[in-house]
Amino acid sequence: MEFTLAQIAEIISASIEGDANAIVKTVCKIEAGFEGGLTFLANPKYTHYIYETKATAAIVNKDFVPEKNVPCALLRVENSYFAFAKLLDFYSQMMKNSKVGVSKMACIAESAKIGENVYIGEFVSVGENVVIGDNAKIYPHVCLGDNVKVGNNTVLNSGVKIYAECVVGNDCIIHAGTVIGADGFGFAAQDGEFTKVPQIGNVVIEDNVEIGANACIDRATMGSTIIHKNVKIDNLVQIAHNVEVGEGSACAAQVGVSGSTKIGKHCIFAGQVGVAGHLTIGDQTIVAAQSGVSHSLPGGQAYLGNPAIPINQERRLIIYRKKLPELFKQVDELEKK
Amino acid sequence: MEFTLAQIAEIISASIEGDANAIVKTVCKIEAGFEGGLTFLANPKYTHYIYETKATAAIVNKDFVPEKNVPCALLRVENSYFAFAKLLDFYSQMMKNSKVGVSKMACIAESAKIGENVYIGEFVSVGENVVIGDNAKIYPHVCLGDNVKVGNNTVLNSGVKIYAECVVGNDCIIHAGTVIGADGFGFAAQDGEFTKVPQIGNVVIEDNVEIGANACIDRATMGSTIIHKNVKIDNLVQIAHNVEVGEGSACAAQVGVSGSTKIGKHCIFAGQVGVAGHLTIGDQTIVAAQSGVSHSLPGGQAYLGNPAIPINQERRLIIYRKKLPELFKQVDELEKK
Amino acid sequence: MEFTLAQIAEIISASIEGDANAIVKTVCKIEAGFEGGLTFLANPKYTHYIYETKATAAIVNKDFVPEKNVPCALLRVENSYFAFAKLLDFYSQMMKNSKVGVSKMACIAESAKIGENVYIGEFVSVGENVVIGDNAKIYPHVCLGDNVKVGNNTVLNSGVKIYAECVVGNDCIIHAGTVIGADGFGFAAQDGEFTKVPQIGNVVIEDNVEIGANACIDRATMGSTIIHKNVKIDNLVQIAHNVEVGEGSACAAQVGVSGSTKIGKHCIFAGQVGVAGHLTIGDQTIVAAQSGVSHSLPGGQAYLGNPAIPINQERRLIIYRKKLPELFKQVDELEKK
Repeated sequence: MEFTLAQIAEIISASIEGDANAIVKTVCKIEAGFEGGLTFLANPKYTHYIYETKATAAIVNKDFVPEKNVPCALLRVENSYFAFAKLLDFYSQMMKNSKVGVSKMACIAESAKIGENVYIGEFVSVGENVVIGDNAKIYPHVCLGDNVKVGNNTVLNSGVKIYAECVVGNDCIIHAGTVIGADGFGFAAQDGEFTKVPQIGNVVIEDNVEIGANACIDRATMGSTIIHKNVKIDNLVQIAHNVEVGEGSACAAQVGVSGSTKIGKHCIFAGQVGVAGHLTIGDQTIVAAQSGVSHSLPGGQAYLGNPAIPINQERRLIIYRKKLPELFKQVDELEKK
Repeated sequence: MEFTLAQIAEIISASIEGDANAIVKTVCKIEAGFEGGLTFLANPKYTHYIYETKATAAIVNKDFVPEKNVPCALLRVENSYFAFAKLLDFYSQMMKNSKVGVSKMACIAESAKIGENVYIGEFVSVGENVVIGDNAKIYPHVCLGDNVKVGNNTVLNSGVKIYAECVVGNDCIIHAGTVIGADGFGFAAQDGEFTKVPQIGNVVIEDNVEIGANACIDRATMGSTIIHKNVKIDNLVQIAHNVEVGEGSACAAQVGVSGSTKIGKHCIFAGQVGVAGHLTIGDQTIVAAQSGVSHSLPGGQAYLGNPAIPINQERRLIIYRKKLPELFKQVDELEKK
Repeated sequence: MEFTLAQIAEIISASIEGDANAIVKTVCKIEAGFEGGLTFLANPKYTHYIYETKATAAIVNKDFVPEKNVPCALLRVENSYFAFAKLLDFYSQMMKNSKVGVSKMACIAESAKIGENVYIGEFVSVGENVVIGDNAKIYPHVCLGDNVKVGNNTVLNSGVKIYAECVVGNDCIIHAGTVIGADGFGFAAQDGEFTKVPQIGNVVIEDNVEIGANACIDRATMGSTIIHKNVKIDNLVQIAHNVEVGEGSACAAQVGVSGSTKIGKHCIFAGQVGVAGHLTIGDQTIVAAQSGVSHSLPGGQAYLGNPAIPINQERRLIIYRKKLPELFKQVDELEKK
């Protein structure tokens, strides 16, 4: 994407010092500028970089007075940080909105209901009775099983697979390769043989949820696996059948939550955390990276370790453990006495 | 999917008390019933729920005598639990069988041999000399490389990728996004450079195996990576090159098994377990969640920890570790004396 | 694929003892031979297997003198090990080169520039202004967003998804289902609500990089997430936004690296390792399986544990920890005295 400085100046209400026809193609850090890059100067600590930046242009505060020659064009605004943030937002909205229309290479069941102003890319498969809301963006290779519902403004990136009967709310983003609604891992063991327990529930994802790439959220055995509104889930996360993730909670990459566990509101699970099945995790629980949660937790506290215990207790134990060699020596010497 | 109570009654040989034309759309728990839901009452502990359930109908035993008014229709059968299980099975079979026929939007090599009564969805890619068995279901966006074999009654969900030369048995289910037969992670390090070791083996998956979503099973360097019959593998599991997983074993989500390890029969690996390479794990080994197996194990026992040791030993160590602060105090006091 | 022994003999300059028209379909181990398999004998320890192998033919050294009857054909060469390696290489090159041409079922933007001698499979989606180098192989269901660049000789296996603006170098291999360039997990928490931070950077993958199946490499918030040349990344690995992986480093399966961490050259991270964000890891750092790196590391050393410490120190602590029950006893007895 290319903009002239004149176009940028219009978006952020800036005055230009330099060539208004100069072209910028992307944004960059002031200390790592390059030809075609647009940067900004907000933090005074970074001021010295502007005298040697290789960026094509920099957004600066109205009252910035250079101490020496500046090698790039300047866009003067009231507040350079806000102007830059506004520009980023404008840019990402534009990217998002650049796709529109339904590809002739998509395969859409006649019984499906497609909203207005929708993008459906090539090789998308839309099953019977699917409902897609207004302004939704469905990228290539997405597969929506029968009776799936996708809300307004929701973005499904390339290769997302949603099994039959699942529901995704409004304003959600699901990244490439994520699978929603595969069968829960439910088997009855009889005489050393596994018998599959049919998984006939679904997944319900509420509004304003973002899910990363190649994650998995399994359908419920019966009823629904529920991801409540404002939840953020990172790449390669596993959410098992009948789990419920409370409003505004976040799971970093590679977290795994076992079947039927209920997670409260505003919890944060750091990377690679594992949570056992059938637990109840209270609101505002924080679990540090790689910890293993094996019991229900009351909420409002931070945990660490495997099994996870209150973080300060575990940190003390880590320090004591490191001193074990000394302790063994001490005890040996005591014994000799 | 919608059924009248009359239809349900026919499937499970029930007598109806209530409106035979009432419609149920799904099943539900008795304590979380809703309009259009069908539930069942088997456990006497749950009897009190039936007097306030919001389900449309409940399957009950023939001899059930209500103590007060029941708000939903009743379907009376010999054994309510078995009737419900039968219904679930019927439903899941019906779901499975609802798809049939080969899409015109699939791309199938002329040399491929397709069995009878097969479903092949749109945008499926089938390579040269592929063999697909009778009653197989191949969902949209599946890619089968050259010479792949898929057995009878096997279901490959959307986006499954099977590399050339790999073999999947009869009655298997592979969930969306799973990759079978990618190159093993084999490199020869020479003078700080990696040289790729060609991975020319394949993957063999025997009968009645289920594999979750977004899992990876790598092809062997030479010979075969083998998943024996009745194995169940959950989402996001990694099975490296030349691994063998014995009959009836199960790996929960996010387990990783390194190259050339042989896992025995009827083993159970809980979530996020890691297993080092070139090990032999005996039959009926159980490994608790997040454990790290660094040595071969004889089988018939449960393990915990990293490195994994017998579970009772590790549990004792966890308790002792928690008492470390006390122990340090004790020793300090002893020293003072 | 099928070869006669005569064809094999020509490739590796061998003399044939046995039926030159016998057909081999694959290679096999000498101790696990089968009809149609070609094996080799290099290590004298394995010589006894050749008298009972079920392989169709074996490559042996020129000077091999059987002590008794050999049941398979022999291909005599100068150095059997090198001949076999050459054959493997020939075979894998042939496999790689067997695909060529652009499918009519691919969807390629008119503005895309496609190199010479390229393979583009069916149902591939190529966005605006994409550049694909000479001899590249793009398998079915790959999706390349707008402005993506793919270098010469690079192989993208089935279902790889590359988001807009990302760059893949020459001679790379990316395995099925891997996602390059999904949004980094960046949210600003305000009053208990998450606001998405636009992720407008990209991913740059340099030359000769191999990435396994179903891995994720997120785009930078701003600037680039960089995978330097000769890096090898295994299946299901998570590389977060703004991470840099140094030249010649390797990450085994299910490793997770958090945002903005810089990994040096020639580092090795074993399976399921987790690395916290904003760290600097020095060159030639080795981290053992399942370890958790929570601090920056100087390089040139091996680490173990969570938090990861020098491997010898952690190994000692593991031994001391195992002796805790004895230590508690000792201290109790001391107290009694």
